[in-house]
Amino acid sequence: MIGVIRVVTFEDQRLLEEHGNIIAAKYGLDVISVCIPNQPYGIYNDETEREAVPKIIDLATRLEKDGAEAVVVSCAADPAVPELRGRLRIPVIGAGSAAALVARGLGLPAGVLGITTNAPQVVKDTLGDLFVGYAKPQNVTNTKDLLTFRGQQQAVETTRSLLEQGAKAIVFACTGYSTIGLADVLRRELGCVVVDGVEAEGLFAWYAVRTRA
Amino acid sequence: MIGVIRVVTFEDQRLLEEHGNIIAAKYGLDVISVCIPNQPYGIYNDETEREAVPKIIDLATRLEKDGAEAVVVSCAADPAVPELRGRLRIPVIGAGSAAALVARGLGLPAGVLGITTNAPQVVKDTLGDLFVGYAKPQNVTNTKDLLTFRGQQQAVETTRSLLEQGAKAIVFACTGYSTIGLADVLRRELGCVVVDGVEAEGLFAWYAVRTRA
Repeated sequence: MIGVIRVVTFEDQRLLEEHGNIIAAKYGLDVISVCIPNQPYGIYNDETEREAVPKIIDLATRLEKDGAEAVVVSCAADPAVPELRGRLRIPVIGAGSAAALVARGLGLPAGVLGITTNAPQVVKDTLGDLFVGYAKPQNVTNTKDLLTFRGQQQAVETTRSLLEQGAKAIVFACTGYSTIGLADVLRRELGCVVVDGVEAEGLFAWYAVRTRA
Repeated sequence: MIGVIRVVTFEDQRLLEEHGNIIAAKYGLDVISVCIPNQPYGIYNDETEREAVPKIIDLATRLEKDGAEAVVVSCAADPAVPELRGRLRIPVIGAGSAAALVARGLGLPAGVLGITTNAPQVVKDTLGDLFVGYAKPQNVTNTKDLLTFRGQQQAVETTRSLLEQGAKAIVFACTGYSTIGLADVLRRELGCVVVDGVEAEGLFAWYAVRTRA
């Protein structure tokens, strides 16, 4: 079993399990999804990240005790991932580092698509000299904006501009793109390699768990 | 289709296809295996690496022209991988960087198991501060030594010493370990996470190809 930690508080079980369900469906893994308490708006600045870190550590520690073989922090900023790696014995995977590492494995210059003003530091650092640029769709400031046709159209246009800057792969720096299935839209419309954070974290989790004896 | 480049000259088709067959079996990919000419002993020092690089570039360029969607250089030293990444439009994957990147994705301190005197630079550099140490089994100097019971026993003992040094994952720095199936032996006998170069290069190739539109 792998544990998937969401860094937003969900009341709705279906929303809570969205990332875990993608991973379960794609890789055939047994997944438990949990979320941090009392942060309905998730992490959106340094203060809310500081607030979330001990909650993520609590959840991950409990998941390890309950027999999780790997823990996934399903957020492109990899919150609490460095802290957890010093504490747990099992693999700890973050959506941001996982996506950037897949792009590095393929060796493709990467454009990063997010919804915030800047790329998450972990994504930029991990890509190193493969980092081509960062962009966010105009007028998209939260994941709900991505649910509109206009939001998705803008995401395609923004991706096109990253490809024109020399990117050969697009790395998602927001897991909201995973839940709307943007990767397949971009692959179909633009024919580029897209690295989706939830797919990437699942890929590493699958390798860690499925190849175990 | 993905192209798998072996950096040893094989006369025997079965040996040539060993890595490609592992990838095809594990990930269900369509694989073509090719090898460099006139180097029956492969790459074993700087001179033989320099000799191999233009041959690998030739093969990879031809594979891309023939429609390969990704090229894999199936050697833990990643020979010609940096050169190819500037030339081809498709993903170029090396066994050494792929294995080290998977260990980084899991965030586990990694011991590197090889057969040469030192760890391949690309593996060490890619692991960064996750690198715990490097070791080779005593009396094993080429992949044929790995085919003996004694050679495999020594590989298990060497791995145990890397785990005692604090490694939580073992990264293979020789694809000879893949062909003898050492990863499953170590997983079973020592219960550790093992990152096998051929499995890792296949994992990235699978992601690049299978998620394409």
